[in-house]
Amino acid sequence: MRAAVLHGPRDVRVDTRPDAGILEPTDAVVRLSASCICGSDLWPYRGLNPSGGPAPMGHEYCGIVEDVGRAVASIARGQFVIGSFAASDNSCPHCLAGYQSSCAHREWVVGAQAPFLRVPLADGTLVATKEVPSASMVPDFLAVSDVLGTGWFAADAANVTEGATVVVVGDGAVGLLGVLSARQMGAERIIAMSRHEARQTLAREFGATDIVTERGDEGIARIRELTRGVGADSVLECVGTQESMAQAIGCARPGGSVSYVGVPHGVALDGAQLFYTHVHLHGGPAPVRRYLPQLIDLVVKGRIHPGKVFDLELPLEQVADGYRAMDERRAIKTLLRVG
Amino acid sequence: MRAAVLHGPRDVRVDTRPDAGILEPTDAVVRLSASCICGSDLWPYRGLNPSGGPAPMGHEYCGIVEDVGRAVASIARGQFVIGSFAASDNSCPHCLAGYQSSCAHREWVVGAQAPFLRVPLADGTLVATKEVPSASMVPDFLAVSDVLGTGWFAADAANVTEGATVVVVGDGAVGLLGVLSARQMGAERIIAMSRHEARQTLAREFGATDIVTERGDEGIARIRELTRGVGADSVLECVGTQESMAQAIGCARPGGSVSYVGVPHGVALDGAQLFYTHVHLHGGPAPVRRYLPQLIDLVVKGRIHPGKVFDLELPLEQVADGYRAMDERRAIKTLLRVG
Repeated sequence: MRAAVLHGPRDVRVDTRPDAGILEPTDAVVRLSASCICGSDLWPYRGLNPSGGPAPMGHEYCGIVEDVGRAVASIARGQFVIGSFAASDNSCPHCLAGYQSSCAHREWVVGAQAPFLRVPLADGTLVATKEVPSASMVPDFLAVSDVLGTGWFAADAANVTEGATVVVVGDGAVGLLGVLSARQMGAERIIAMSRHEARQTLAREFGATDIVTERGDEGIARIRELTRGVGADSVLECVGTQESMAQAIGCARPGGSVSYVGVPHGVALDGAQLFYTHVHLHGGPAPVRRYLPQLIDLVVKGRIHPGKVFDLELPLEQVADGYRAMDERRAIKTLLRVG
Repeated sequence: MRAAVLHGPRDVRVDTRPDAGILEPTDAVVRLSASCICGSDLWPYRGLNPSGGPAPMGHEYCGIVEDVGRAVASIARGQFVIGSFAASDNSCPHCLAGYQSSCAHREWVVGAQAPFLRVPLADGTLVATKEVPSASMVPDFLAVSDVLGTGWFAADAANVTEGATVVVVGDGAVGLLGVLSARQMGAERIIAMSRHEARQTLAREFGATDIVTERGDEGIARIRELTRGVGADSVLECVGTQESMAQAIGCARPGGSVSYVGVPHGVALDGAQLFYTHVHLHGGPAPVRRYLPQLIDLVVKGRIHPGKVFDLELPLEQVADGYRAMDERRAIKTLLRVG
């Protein structure tokens, strides 16, 4: 099959690779309805993550089950399924506590920028819809697989509650869906920090009540002003740099919560500084599996349209253009037609 | 009056200083029933905190109100009161959110190793008992003022709940009272990390179910063993060093909670490492005022005896011996007779 492979910094190509197949009896193979490029794919694309040679790319997926291993019990051929980038058994103590992305048997899913995908631990990883959805709903389900699940975790980990004042740092797809998630959780005020017009517009559509264009200390000062000197109850850090983390912590009120959901790159926290901020800090790879049933339900009922983050659609063969557009911030998120 | 003053590293003396008096209309002056030495006093005593010249010491206190400023409304002469090391108005947004130690008008209380103490913001800081307690109860109330309040915050900030498995890192007075607090909150298993026999004994008396003497990676491995590979739900970090913080984070299960309540000294947290542990992190200067009514009530009813952490009692004039005994870990905590 044809599949996206990263060969080196800014060198992503579509290569011919072996067909995805069952390797373990707990595997499933999914014929993908669509695939996409993740903001986190840009770290290795930019050469900022060490790479050990050519790497198949992509970890967001939904589609029709093509085949299952003999030990798979709850997932069947022909079902439409959504899964997370972290394959999990969904039965170990970490999974039962809701941290499937730290499952004792966790495997990272790779190679989803392709027409077919092998998904390990299918029973614990995949969630099937009752019916096969129409093609028009595929972008929404695809977004559930990671970018919405991660934005939702950002809001949940920042303890967003009814009536809360929320700040979202980062206007990528995860940040924008963090806005949507905070709105769903009943936040009263949602301040999106963004200086990019198209993203500001989508943030407002998803529920942002205020936009702050300032960054760093100026951004923090603006948030203090908007919250009468108090700071925000919940801050979602959706970037993963030292600057964005400092900005997020600086925006929170004492006793407020800061979540971080992008792999931190070069982030160091000074213990004493953190101590005097009094913030709650929680994050990590989003346990998307925990939220899948609820998020799928919201999509099925038409209550949310997370697929709006896809503002560029390309065939798989043009995947390099998709990476470039996201790298240059011309596109928020690229959907790939793989069929 | 006579008062303990730190002149330089390991040089604490009893000097004659001006009597404590009302400086602001919101002040109270308290005739202390007893005072004590805090583990945190050892940082400047050891020269590990920069000092700007001779410094009056002590911030833990209970006693009889001697005088109040003209703006004080809820506290009256003759009452027995307990207060926190952080004076607070108890009415600003941070106080109302339960973070009185980040009060918008916070003042640090200093000079409590003396017979009299000026307490700023008396209405918001002090809590009076219904009756003046007997002398035998003074150590319990004195412990409430900081060391129990801080241990209680450690347990609360680590989200200790009914049935939880808890690890306490640090066998100082705060750690030991963290054990007591976790027990009061219904923890099922409380593992105290200590290699000091007298402290182990008190930990067991306060409710510890297990003692682990190993430290660092060996300590973490032992906790993993004791929790069948899962890790603890809640970990109380009651030391404040890089080693103790790493040990605490290493003992938590993914999604578990780590609290830290001692001012971190030289602690740096790597963002990416923290990310993959999935822990909740919360701490800061304990908002003792939040807990005072509840803790006073537990003491009045005889349900807890936090004063047991005082294993050395000295007159104020021998305060230097008290510091020395704690510095050399011969004493857990020194009570000072100041009357």
